[in-house]
Amino acid sequence: MISIETFPNPKPDRKYVITHVNPEFTSVCPKTGLPDFGIITVKYIPDKVCLELKALKYYYLSYRDKGIFYEAVTNQILDDLVAACEPLEMEITSEWTTRGGMNSVIVAEYHKGE
Amino acid sequence: MISIETFPNPKPDRKYVITHVNPEFTSVCPKTGLPDFGIITVKYIPDKVCLELKALKYYYLSYRDKGIFYEAVTNQILDDLVAACEPLEMEITSEWTTRGGMNSVIVAEYHKGE
Amino acid sequence: MISIETFPNPKPDRKYVITHVNPEFTSVCPKTGLPDFGIITVKYIPDKVCLELKALKYYYLSYRDKGIFYEAVTNQILDDLVAACEPLEMEITSEWTTRGGMNSVIVAEYHKGE
Amino acid sequence: MISIETFPNPKPDRKYVITHVNPEFTSVCPKTGLPDFGIITVKYIPDKVCLELKALKYYYLSYRDKGIFYEAVTNQILDDLVAACEPLEMEITSEWTTRGGMNSVIVAEYHKGE
Amino acid sequence: MISIETFPNPKPDRKYVITHVNPEFTSVCPKTGLPDFGIITVKYIPDKVCLELKALKYYYLSYRDKGIFYEAVTNQILDDLVAACEPLEMEITSEWTTRGGMNSVIVAEYHKGE
Amino acid sequence: MISIETFPNPKPDRKYVITHVNPEFTSVCPKTGLPDFGIITVKYIPDKVCLELKALKYYYLSYRDKGIFYEAVTNQILDDLVAACEPLEMEITSEWTTRGGMNSVIVAEYHKGE
Amino acid sequence: MISIETFPNPKPDRKYVITHVNPEFTSVCPKTGLPDFGIITVKYIPDKVCLELKALKYYYLSYRDKGIFYEAVTNQILDDLVAACEPLEMEITSEWTTRGGMNSVIVAEYHKGE
Amino acid sequence: MISIETFPNPKPDRKYVITHVNPEFTSVCPKTGLPDFGIITVKYIPDKVCLELKALKYYYLSYRDKGIFYEAVTNQILDDLVAACEPLEMEITSEWTTRGGMNSVIVAEYHKGE
Amino acid sequence: MISIETFPNPKPDRKYVITHVNPEFTSVCPKTGLPDFGIITVKYIPDKVCLELKALKYYYLSYRDKGIFYEAVTNQILDDLVAACEPLEMEITSEWTTRGGMNSVIVAEYHKGE
Amino acid sequence: MISIETFPNPKPDRKYVITHVNPEFTSVCPKTGLPDFGIITVKYIPDKVCLELKALKYYYLSYRDKGIFYEAVTNQILDDLVAACEPLEMEITSEWTTRGGMNSVIVAEYHKGE
Repeated sequence: MISIETFPNPKPDRKYVITHVNPEFTSVCPKTGLPDFGIITVKYIPDKVCLELKALKYYYLSYRDKGIFYEAVTNQILDDLVAACEPLEMEITSEWTTRGGMNSVIVAEYHKGE
Repeated sequence: MISIETFPNPKPDRKYVITHVNPEFTSVCPKTGLPDFGIITVKYIPDKVCLELKALKYYYLSYRDKGIFYEAVTNQILDDLVAACEPLEMEITSEWTTRGGMNSVIVAEYHKGE
Repeated sequence: MISIETFPNPKPDRKYVITHVNPEFTSVCPKTGLPDFGIITVKYIPDKVCLELKALKYYYLSYRDKGIFYEAVTNQILDDLVAACEPLEMEITSEWTTRGGMNSVIVAEYHKGE
Repeated sequence: MISIETFPNPKPDRKYVITHVNPEFTSVCPKTGLPDFGIITVKYIPDKVCLELKALKYYYLSYRDKGIFYEAVTNQILDDLVAACEPLEMEITSEWTTRGGMNSVIVAEYHKGE
Repeated sequence: MISIETFPNPKPDRKYVITHVNPEFTSVCPKTGLPDFGIITVKYIPDKVCLELKALKYYYLSYRDKGIFYEAVTNQILDDLVAACEPLEMEITSEWTTRGGMNSVIVAEYHKGE
Repeated sequence: MISIETFPNPKPDRKYVITHVNPEFTSVCPKTGLPDFGIITVKYIPDKVCLELKALKYYYLSYRDKGIFYEAVTNQILDDLVAACEPLEMEITSEWTTRGGMNSVIVAEYHKGE
Repeated sequence: MISIETFPNPKPDRKYVITHVNPEFTSVCPKTGLPDFGIITVKYIPDKVCLELKALKYYYLSYRDKGIFYEAVTNQILDDLVAACEPLEMEITSEWTTRGGMNSVIVAEYHKGE
Repeated sequence: MISIETFPNPKPDRKYVITHVNPEFTSVCPKTGLPDFGIITVKYIPDKVCLELKALKYYYLSYRDKGIFYEAVTNQILDDLVAACEPLEMEITSEWTTRGGMNSVIVAEYHKGE
Repeated sequence: MISIETFPNPKPDRKYVITHVNPEFTSVCPKTGLPDFGIITVKYIPDKVCLELKALKYYYLSYRDKGIFYEAVTNQILDDLVAACEPLEMEITSEWTTRGGMNSVIVAEYHKGE
Repeated sequence: MISIETFPNPKPDRKYVITHVNPEFTSVCPKTGLPDFGIITVKYIPDKVCLELKALKYYYLSYRDKGIFYEAVTNQILDDLVAACEPLEMEITSEWTTRGGMNSVIVAEYHKGE
């Protein structure tokens, strides 16, 4: 796994919400070998550290040639970003472009201590 | 009933939400014999298995020549998909194009153990 | 009152929601005698029967030459449709085009047993 | 035919364009007896007189109970309004709500001296 | 204060919601003397009487030459309309066009008996 | 070929434009056997007759089980409708939903006497 | 007439286009005494001078209490602004909010030397 | 810190909500030295005083040349505005334009006495 | 160069227009090595053959790992597709997502015999 | 004047169109000293060289602290970019956010050899 850089939370005593939307995510369908395209949204309440924006971008780039299903990639990103910044709460939403006439959306959440 | 293929849930220990939107659904009005057109949205929390996208598409195709009312088709899809993947929760929404100057929407839900 | 045809609920053991939107409603302003135009939305949970779509359309047509205020027509439709299909819950929304530079919306609800 | 009031053009020596959009037009389908709903747009270059807005509204109301086809009503309105104000140029556009799953638009033009 | 006409609630035994949106409100900034423009929305549950639409329009017109701040006008309208129709609940929303590069929105509510 | 009913042009001495938009067209892909979905727009200047709306609808329905490519169906509809009503001018536009991540649009025109 | 301040065109040897859109115009209907609301757009090619933005705003304010018809106000603004800055070309568009269920738009143009 | 002018709350005995949206915020990225652009929304329930709109505008201008991260600027604005007007509740939302292909949103809240 | 499959034009005696929009194009910036994302639209009048949709998709995929500038990729696609199907006319439009705060669009055309 | 880097046109024998949209332009109003915000669009047909995107961005940044009117900045950008890349044709459009309740747009063009 790529390590994802973080920086100290500038206001650790306040619970506040950070959202980063990446409309340029692409991975590869493990069945067909063809590229998938999606919008990945990470929404979280930081604890001690915040995700560094450029590091997040490079983390997403690591999926460009990876064969992985929608359900798996969404849960994998949640696991990796939780490990990287240990937030109080985090939600990953992946919205995928039309395949076989259908659009898909996957949403997974993490709550510290649950 | 057509059998609907599934695959193992890649993250069975996390409750997360999967949505598939099919804007290309068509069935037949049992009264007039004319085609109906709608958008079918399935939204569910998987348990042990997930719905395979291509299998879902073929399941929807089986309605192309079937005469069935809005209210019945919505509940039938819910029954069939619940039987296929035994989810923790599932919601089917059908949105229909204008007939007689009116648009209709039907929403039906399933909650395991209720 | 016009009688409004119904048909048996195909899934009476499940609470689900049906919505019919009519963007072509017109009645007459009792003050000016000029036509009013609105969008009428009926949203309900059926019990034993469902509203038949064509019958609903003809019911709405009966207002075309009737002089009646926004507030009254909204409550009248709710009373008539509740009487016709005895639903578990029903909500009527009427949204009216601009009159005197103002747009109006009326929302009335029925809950069985309250 | 209803007579349509006009008023003197306040700037008869300049060719300029007036547009009135009526999104609340309704007439009756001569085949089914059911109401049709449309948006009527009149766009014209006045000569000696302009169409009075309230008179135009009442003219449109005269179609509320009239059975007439899309193509005929569009040409009839053009003929009547040209007769009423003798413009240099006029264009009538009628846009109709969905019937049988289809939307229709009719456009007819008049050019003085052609 | 202008008196605001009302009429008897046609369904006093049902709690339902009436909304009137006026996108053509204008008053005067007491600091600069320049006009302010806004959208005023009144949303209420009537008790014994309803606000008459034309009376409401004339009430709003009384602000056309009045110098008054956003926060004050919103609360004043709420006080005046509550006094006029003694509703069960009422909410006033004022949305103002850009001033100094900023848009403002004020929302004030009344609940009977609080 | 299905014969397509027409009716006499109510204003044959004026060149005017009629547009019918059908957002519910479906045919079958001859390669995969899967359904295609599109919006078909016919725009024409009538000569002696106009296309009857209900007949046009039934004509479109005849493609529901036909295997035919985008380019071919567009030109075929133009040929059939020109034969049916012999217009002065006609344009067919077909807009297709996403296949393989791509959207397609085909436009073909007919001009009498060219 | 209010005099309208101008400033020297910073690039008099190039024909270029300036547009100012005022969505906050209001005047008074001479028939009913009620306010009218519109969007006034001035689009012009300057010659020796440009219209000063603040002066233009104050010019528009002078209509706030003036009773004048749509067609007249549009032509009057064109005449006044042409007199103020003597442009090579100018176009005034006035778009009015709904009155009697109808929206109106007036467009008038000036071309130097015609 | 710049002092931010306030004025007495015109209705201190009612809890109501004021929102000011500034779509023209700009600060400087401390890493690259390049400008950042965002929309800052302040939403609050005033206690004894309200934020003066012009003073708020000048406060925002003080960030034009300041190097500061998204997370820090959002929390800093919340701290400064809370100090200035001591509201009952306040929420700051900052929405940032695309950087590195990603959009970011930060939301921070203050509740008196927590 | 990848060879791009074609099929015989089903209506070679009529000049008509085919458009294929690919919103999922991605290549690599030769300066930074980071991916670029764009929408590629090909619009053409076929002569003897048409572009096969699946072949076109695979042609676009060949850019996924190629370092190439916006201006070059647009002209290269035009050259390749003209060589593949020898159309009467063709236009390529590439619309690129935000880089450095800016959006770019490139349009290149081919006309046979010029 | 800042020098603006260019690179060789990859297809100098074809006339094609390049557009760069910068929605993050800001300069200073010379009258009030307050910032102006706008969208600057450059659209051009290159001759021997193209504008380098990053250089263009830095060129725009040089206006951040410059006091200059809308009309002047638009013409200045046109003059500077024409000097930098000597295009066959170029058009600059500047669209400005609301000031004094009005939006402004300026468009200036250059054609080589005129």
